[in-house]
Amino acid sequence: MIIVVRPDATEEQINHIIKKIKDHGLQAHVSKGTERTIIGAIGDEAILQSLPLEAIPGVEKVLPILKPFKLASLEFRKEKTIINVCGQQIGGKRIAVMAGPCAVENKTLLFEIAQEVKKAGANFVRGGAFKPRTSPYAFQGLEEEGLKYLAEARERTGLPIVTEVMDPRDIDLIAKYADVLQIGARNMQNFRLLKEVGLCKKPILLKRGISATIKEWLMSAEYIMSGGNHNVILCERGIRTYETATRNTLDLSAVPVLKQMTHLPVIVDPSHAVGKWDLVAPMAKAAIAAGADGLIIEVHSNPEEALCDGEQSLKPRSFKQLMEEMKPIAAAVGREI
Amino acid sequence: MIIVVRPDATEEQINHIIKKIKDHGLQAHVSKGTERTIIGAIGDEAILQSLPLEAIPGVEKVLPILKPFKLASLEFRKEKTIINVCGQQIGGKRIAVMAGPCAVENKTLLFEIAQEVKKAGANFVRGGAFKPRTSPYAFQGLEEEGLKYLAEARERTGLPIVTEVMDPRDIDLIAKYADVLQIGARNMQNFRLLKEVGLCKKPILLKRGISATIKEWLMSAEYIMSGGNHNVILCERGIRTYETATRNTLDLSAVPVLKQMTHLPVIVDPSHAVGKWDLVAPMAKAAIAAGADGLIIEVHSNPEEALCDGEQSLKPRSFKQLMEEMKPIAAAVGREI
Amino acid sequence: MIIVVRPDATEEQINHIIKKIKDHGLQAHVSKGTERTIIGAIGDEAILQSLPLEAIPGVEKVLPILKPFKLASLEFRKEKTIINVCGQQIGGKRIAVMAGPCAVENKTLLFEIAQEVKKAGANFVRGGAFKPRTSPYAFQGLEEEGLKYLAEARERTGLPIVTEVMDPRDIDLIAKYADVLQIGARNMQNFRLLKEVGLCKKPILLKRGISATIKEWLMSAEYIMSGGNHNVILCERGIRTYETATRNTLDLSAVPVLKQMTHLPVIVDPSHAVGKWDLVAPMAKAAIAAGADGLIIEVHSNPEEALCDGEQSLKPRSFKQLMEEMKPIAAAVGREI
Amino acid sequence: MIIVVRPDATEEQINHIIKKIKDHGLQAHVSKGTERTIIGAIGDEAILQSLPLEAIPGVEKVLPILKPFKLASLEFRKEKTIINVCGQQIGGKRIAVMAGPCAVENKTLLFEIAQEVKKAGANFVRGGAFKPRTSPYAFQGLEEEGLKYLAEARERTGLPIVTEVMDPRDIDLIAKYADVLQIGARNMQNFRLLKEVGLCKKPILLKRGISATIKEWLMSAEYIMSGGNHNVILCERGIRTYETATRNTLDLSAVPVLKQMTHLPVIVDPSHAVGKWDLVAPMAKAAIAAGADGLIIEVHSNPEEALCDGEQSLKPRSFKQLMEEMKPIAAAVGREI
Repeated sequence: MIIVVRPDATEEQINHIIKKIKDHGLQAHVSKGTERTIIGAIGDEAILQSLPLEAIPGVEKVLPILKPFKLASLEFRKEKTIINVCGQQIGGKRIAVMAGPCAVENKTLLFEIAQEVKKAGANFVRGGAFKPRTSPYAFQGLEEEGLKYLAEARERTGLPIVTEVMDPRDIDLIAKYADVLQIGARNMQNFRLLKEVGLCKKPILLKRGISATIKEWLMSAEYIMSGGNHNVILCERGIRTYETATRNTLDLSAVPVLKQMTHLPVIVDPSHAVGKWDLVAPMAKAAIAAGADGLIIEVHSNPEEALCDGEQSLKPRSFKQLMEEMKPIAAAVGREI
Repeated sequence: MIIVVRPDATEEQINHIIKKIKDHGLQAHVSKGTERTIIGAIGDEAILQSLPLEAIPGVEKVLPILKPFKLASLEFRKEKTIINVCGQQIGGKRIAVMAGPCAVENKTLLFEIAQEVKKAGANFVRGGAFKPRTSPYAFQGLEEEGLKYLAEARERTGLPIVTEVMDPRDIDLIAKYADVLQIGARNMQNFRLLKEVGLCKKPILLKRGISATIKEWLMSAEYIMSGGNHNVILCERGIRTYETATRNTLDLSAVPVLKQMTHLPVIVDPSHAVGKWDLVAPMAKAAIAAGADGLIIEVHSNPEEALCDGEQSLKPRSFKQLMEEMKPIAAAVGREI
Repeated sequence: MIIVVRPDATEEQINHIIKKIKDHGLQAHVSKGTERTIIGAIGDEAILQSLPLEAIPGVEKVLPILKPFKLASLEFRKEKTIINVCGQQIGGKRIAVMAGPCAVENKTLLFEIAQEVKKAGANFVRGGAFKPRTSPYAFQGLEEEGLKYLAEARERTGLPIVTEVMDPRDIDLIAKYADVLQIGARNMQNFRLLKEVGLCKKPILLKRGISATIKEWLMSAEYIMSGGNHNVILCERGIRTYETATRNTLDLSAVPVLKQMTHLPVIVDPSHAVGKWDLVAPMAKAAIAAGADGLIIEVHSNPEEALCDGEQSLKPRSFKQLMEEMKPIAAAVGREI
Repeated sequence: MIIVVRPDATEEQINHIIKKIKDHGLQAHVSKGTERTIIGAIGDEAILQSLPLEAIPGVEKVLPILKPFKLASLEFRKEKTIINVCGQQIGGKRIAVMAGPCAVENKTLLFEIAQEVKKAGANFVRGGAFKPRTSPYAFQGLEEEGLKYLAEARERTGLPIVTEVMDPRDIDLIAKYADVLQIGARNMQNFRLLKEVGLCKKPILLKRGISATIKEWLMSAEYIMSGGNHNVILCERGIRTYETATRNTLDLSAVPVLKQMTHLPVIVDPSHAVGKWDLVAPMAKAAIAAGADGLIIEVHSNPEEALCDGEQSLKPRSFKQLMEEMKPIAAAVGREI
């Protein structure tokens, strides 16, 4: 860590900073430049990162050298993590495609959609049983009943199930039925929830918060991993910007940035990012070209009657076409679909 | 609700849109303009707000007329809500000032700070026992022990206590000790938590999410109110923007905007917004001038040793000075401190 | 245009709004709903868009129905615009690839890079002679001397030249040497400059402003087109968000959004968007997959000595490899490279 | 400047970095920590700031120690700059209040408004003769005729005139009539314009770009100052965020931040920031409380007929009332109005 000293700092203030560093077991290395004095703290930077060094008189700014996450970093683990779920892989050569309705609405519809996405080549079925909704007056999900339908959909299709968990009290219940637990964007910094899914045995799909930096997102993965669960899948789903032409702004550059920072697999959710079904296909293709390990896409047989997010859902036919169109793109980047 | 029809929509598509509106019990009013046909849906707009009308072929865009929240709106309740907590008011003539350390670190320190802020004129003591921290390796709070110290600080000072709740399972415990329960920015859309504090009898201080619109924030208040708890205090604490000179960007215009939309009291947290202690005083003054009903300010006797947010904490002496300096500003806007 | 009336508006205020609409030659259509009265203004909406209707007492909000741009819209021209420049096309089947150094630094270097990018398959040479720099102390470009080198590079390679214009007074000079004039992101709303390039005969490459909405961007294209120059190429180059891991956030969804709004060709500048050379290739591929009509990429033989933007420049060898890797992706979306 | 070396950098790469630093006349100081090697470059950092050090193999990141601006910095000049304009001051004890219509529309209206704002206590008259408009079809200003009216308004009121310059070719003309030249938000990085107003003798009011960081804004001030014109007034006018309840988000914390970074006076434009007349007064008061040196406020006698920005203009009566209400707030922060 580098501490830049204010030009008007007194000798006494500088000595106080040095003492503080040494008191925490690190070495202090002072370097007087032409315009500023800087102090390098040598040793375990993690100790200093939790101290409010900027509150010390005479400090102008503090420049950390190391990243604040460890288990999630490429330095901790050099090979890419590949997560195996009931015979399917996430992070391997084959692109993981998770598809299904935003919410589980009823049995028939779910089974129909599940069959369709399987036929089109998806390797996971997604569907929400517990739904985070902006309005308290909107449909909140079928809860355990929905989980049962999802489990039955797995029986019928052989595909593993991805579903969201919103409350630490539901983890055991959901883990009983589902294969991958999703943490939604709004809960990316629900630290209690992160800690507890860290104790769970199922892989966790961690969506990026709507205004989370990539660093904060990796810190949230670190929360889960520090509990012992290293099977974390990162999911970019659009960030909030000033632009209103799309629901959010899909930050596809997060994919190659993450590949330089972490060994965890990275997938993309184009549906929530754009918020309009006719923009999903180009962004799904772009995600594959950018190097994503997978996609999560909303599919509904009758979008205009969907209880949730109908405007961004593909019909099965469009989804099937997209799957076909993505094949040569996957091949072009050394993957398959 | 107004539905704008695409210029290339067929007669059949238009009839389908009209049918859909009527099927939900509303009237459809068609108006053909020179360049666009628009359809007005007359009746209970709330029914339509939950439908994915943009998924219907032929629809160009959907323009809602009404706000999606009710209980929180000025139309529902015309007089300003004043919340009474153990003899103190929030939303009344006197500015509510909540002050104290970011986290409860130990008994002695808390009592010392509580006494100091009381002497300076604060009317609430704040302090965190359960702390949401970006890093899993950082101090996470003293939990129940911290709550006990807070309750004891109330005994000693006579001031009500404000503290954060992060997990639905802690609500009963925290409500036993505290007078106002705070929902932090990261949990503004933790809907399960909102629902359950809606069943609680204690007032809820609801911080604005770091990238929440004012509408979404009021929808979160609506979640709490729809559970029966109408004592919600809104707290602006800075939003995330591209500017890095401050920790967040304090959106003070939210104060007068909210005064035009809701009857709920609005307070401001300058400490988290700016993130640097020497910027707190000007922004606290500005908040009062903009019409805020209160402030929540971090105060610590020894910021450079604070376990949390030391760089943004005022020392008791600076806090006392600020309280003095705000008096004429409060008077200038018809309030007192 | 729809005018939503405040619930507390008086009959007199409503009549005043109606009168105002009629005074401007439009018809007013009043519709009283259960909770709000709305007034539809039927006729030429452009007239109303310039009026401050929200300043009229009793008006709650104004909802425009039509887009504010015309010449740039798909409704004005249904077929895609293809721009021909010295035998090269922008907007046709073949992807337009513009490559070269950020700034023209000297003759030898420019010629060397121009030859390299030509060999790799680029169809335009880019290079700045007039440079907008954040610091007044940084290299500002070779000006006319640089233009002469660019023209000579065209002679040697046969490729058309793209270069930036920053000042209305330089248009004639630059148009004498260059084939495509670029308006940089910082000048996207330099309306004087837009007006004057609208009178120029050369195609204009209009970069998106760092915080411009897609609508504002199209309004800037409209400025140029309303002067008579319909050969406008839109260039997405990243927008400003809170994320600092990349220089800007590349908004690739702008590509399919624009395809639904305008007939103008859309290209992408991954270099300025990401700001780091090793992130350029994945985003260039993603841009093609998303449907972009072209790319503009910074290439430099010796990036660490570049006078401008070296950190985001590809070496010729990496550029060549990228060109090869993009071929199957272009083919997958029905294009060629 | 601190250069952090990648953990996998070779000895050869490190030596190359050191050589590069020495080649530019600085000293290189290498420090090997437990997890990273860092290299401090000691000497004139400005030399290095223009080099693409991140393009050098083996470099992980580059941390600048110094600010990139000089003339605008508090280190260059410790006392606050006070600008004198025809007997009025900006940056002195008295708050500078600039008021008037968005655009000069006609003689009578301008004179009427100018008289009203003078009576209310304003000390400058503002009004646009050259108007930057998002649409090419909107009113673009009266140009020289408008300037003449402004000059006549100065004769009648005795108040100095503030008006916008958009094009380097208009500087001489505008400087002939006006007392303060305004650079609008959209031209904050129109570097040609900045350079040329730097040669002008009149004070320059430099508005913050809609998405400019405070540092970039000061770099634009530096452009003007490096030309010899040190009379620059900074004007915060709202930044672009995701929030749509206001036109922009007024970043009032920029005021105290700037006071720690620069000697230049800082004023605030609440009208453009909020975009609605009934939000102007609270934000004007907040600006004074935050320490602003002045305000620029739009006033119009008949907002609903204004040719520009009527929805955000105060009527003379509201402006007068605001002026009265701000007096005790100004007094509370040691200023007068």
